[in-house]
Amino acid sequence: MKKFANNVNDMLVESLTGFATAHNDLVSLSLEPTYLTRKEKAVNKVAVISGGGAGHEPLHAGFIGQGMLDAACPGQVFTSPTPDQMIAAAEAVDAGKGVLFIVKNYAGDVMNFEMAAEMVGIENSSVLTSDDCAVVNSTYTEGRRGVAGTVIVEKCVGSIAETGADLATCKALGDKINAQTASIGVAFTSCTVPAAGKPTFEISDTEIEMGVGIHGEPGRKRESMREADAIVKDMVDAILSDLGDKASNAEVLLLVNGLGATPLMELYLIYNTAEKLLKAQGIAIARSLVGNYTTAIDMSGASITACVLDEEIKSHWDSPVHTAAFRWGI
Amino acid sequence: MKKFANNVNDMLVESLTGFATAHNDLVSLSLEPTYLTRKEKAVNKVAVISGGGAGHEPLHAGFIGQGMLDAACPGQVFTSPTPDQMIAAAEAVDAGKGVLFIVKNYAGDVMNFEMAAEMVGIENSSVLTSDDCAVVNSTYTEGRRGVAGTVIVEKCVGSIAETGADLATCKALGDKINAQTASIGVAFTSCTVPAAGKPTFEISDTEIEMGVGIHGEPGRKRESMREADAIVKDMVDAILSDLGDKASNAEVLLLVNGLGATPLMELYLIYNTAEKLLKAQGIAIARSLVGNYTTAIDMSGASITACVLDEEIKSHWDSPVHTAAFRWGI
Repeated sequence: MKKFANNVNDMLVESLTGFATAHNDLVSLSLEPTYLTRKEKAVNKVAVISGGGAGHEPLHAGFIGQGMLDAACPGQVFTSPTPDQMIAAAEAVDAGKGVLFIVKNYAGDVMNFEMAAEMVGIENSSVLTSDDCAVVNSTYTEGRRGVAGTVIVEKCVGSIAETGADLATCKALGDKINAQTASIGVAFTSCTVPAAGKPTFEISDTEIEMGVGIHGEPGRKRESMREADAIVKDMVDAILSDLGDKASNAEVLLLVNGLGATPLMELYLIYNTAEKLLKAQGIAIARSLVGNYTTAIDMSGASITACVLDEEIKSHWDSPVHTAAFRWGI
Repeated sequence: MKKFANNVNDMLVESLTGFATAHNDLVSLSLEPTYLTRKEKAVNKVAVISGGGAGHEPLHAGFIGQGMLDAACPGQVFTSPTPDQMIAAAEAVDAGKGVLFIVKNYAGDVMNFEMAAEMVGIENSSVLTSDDCAVVNSTYTEGRRGVAGTVIVEKCVGSIAETGADLATCKALGDKINAQTASIGVAFTSCTVPAAGKPTFEISDTEIEMGVGIHGEPGRKRESMREADAIVKDMVDAILSDLGDKASNAEVLLLVNGLGATPLMELYLIYNTAEKLLKAQGIAIARSLVGNYTTAIDMSGASITACVLDEEIKSHWDSPVHTAAFRWGI
């Protein structure tokens, strides 16, 4: 295993310290317990907090800032943060209008955010993301996994919170987006968790893992390597089958997300094929996003996400945002 | 070799088509010959054009748009574009105030851009970037290589061109920035050029290539893998030694650039160490950039760049920009 590391146990803190220093106009870092908040506390709005294991950067800390998250709680790589982190973050960013947790559906995250929600003592609600249509139930999940679609939920919920919307309204938008978003990933290689020091799974040069999770969890099936158009077609078919009538003549946001080690050149090639396939089904790509937004450390592979849009979601996707990973209109 | 590809020969066109579709608000794509321009032609300014082999995305097409490039000419992976591309791009974006080429110092690129400059028939000048302090002369280079520092040159020259500055003024700023910018890269793995189908070089699990080029060219030396702080210290030392007095008590822009397969978490860890080392030398990090901006396909590794700032460079770095890869203030 070759990684930029001094020792495995310090990687997270050293990386977060670098992140907080590089973006010291945007974020503040607390280390005991570990959480990051906006540099300037927002007022008169629902506080939006996310979190989860590290290794998916820029998710979630890269999304802290005006128009998106108020705080993020990172755990160690692929390990849930603990309730003390969420409680401290909630207390730090609570502006009197309540706190909304956005949680990817993984058993550890769900349990810890639920414990925090019970203990936090301020008005609290949660949006659970479960956009991965590859499998129901998985290594770390009951139900579907929350993956790259979480980015869209965080952007739009962050936007509506910024308007002063109440907690129920913010949660309702998050739940709505999650219900009309579907994702599926494919892996060419495993990731390597630093603490493990070796690849999470074995895969040969002629195989791909279709439906892989963002921690290297098994997907739908181990398949043969083949041309990009065929791989992308299977992914788009899975998404369309999952969205069903919701996608009929719809406008969508098409997100092609790199899992860590796949070049941008290939992500745009995937986009090219996915866009043509969706268009052929009468679906319009009204918004797009291509890049590494929900990664699996150093995995070679990509995911495709389609989010069915309406005017409300479009307006919140387009609204100004200023975070380390997203910036527009500001 | 596992890549998202249908066939190797079509990868560039399919990827560019996806890029142009995803960003059809920003860019237009011509395929015969191949170049990309801003969607809306800028007027009353020097036209700024860059280009080079593909495989370094988002460089250069990701930098087309308001405040940065007017056009980019991509060659096949790691292969120079040809003069017909530059001539067609120059004719397309020339707004009567001349055309400035920004060219990374590689023999093929230099030759082809020079031929285009001779043939283009409009007022023309060039900035040659050569920020890589690792080696003088290299596999594809006489003199130093142009690497990630090119991004800073393109941003700032794009900015000054937008003010209506004349060709000589634009060139002078580009040359100034290049002269006070130093970069060095390190590779943990080789990249794999699609047409070759196998890694460009062999490297063991216990070795690193210090000073690697962005095409996998040899660097200073094959060294032993070691902890991040030690690797980063050698890189920062090389940069400071190259900048010499220019860095003394200076403000710098610190760019930590991923070469393709290195997770953002590790890039921020590198940033953390580099920032501390520079600070200890009395150097202030006044601006920063961390991410994949000048890649080497799927190479695992990173480069560090320091650009000595002054008020002029800072103002042009900060000015509004709207491209696929960079957006702020708009």
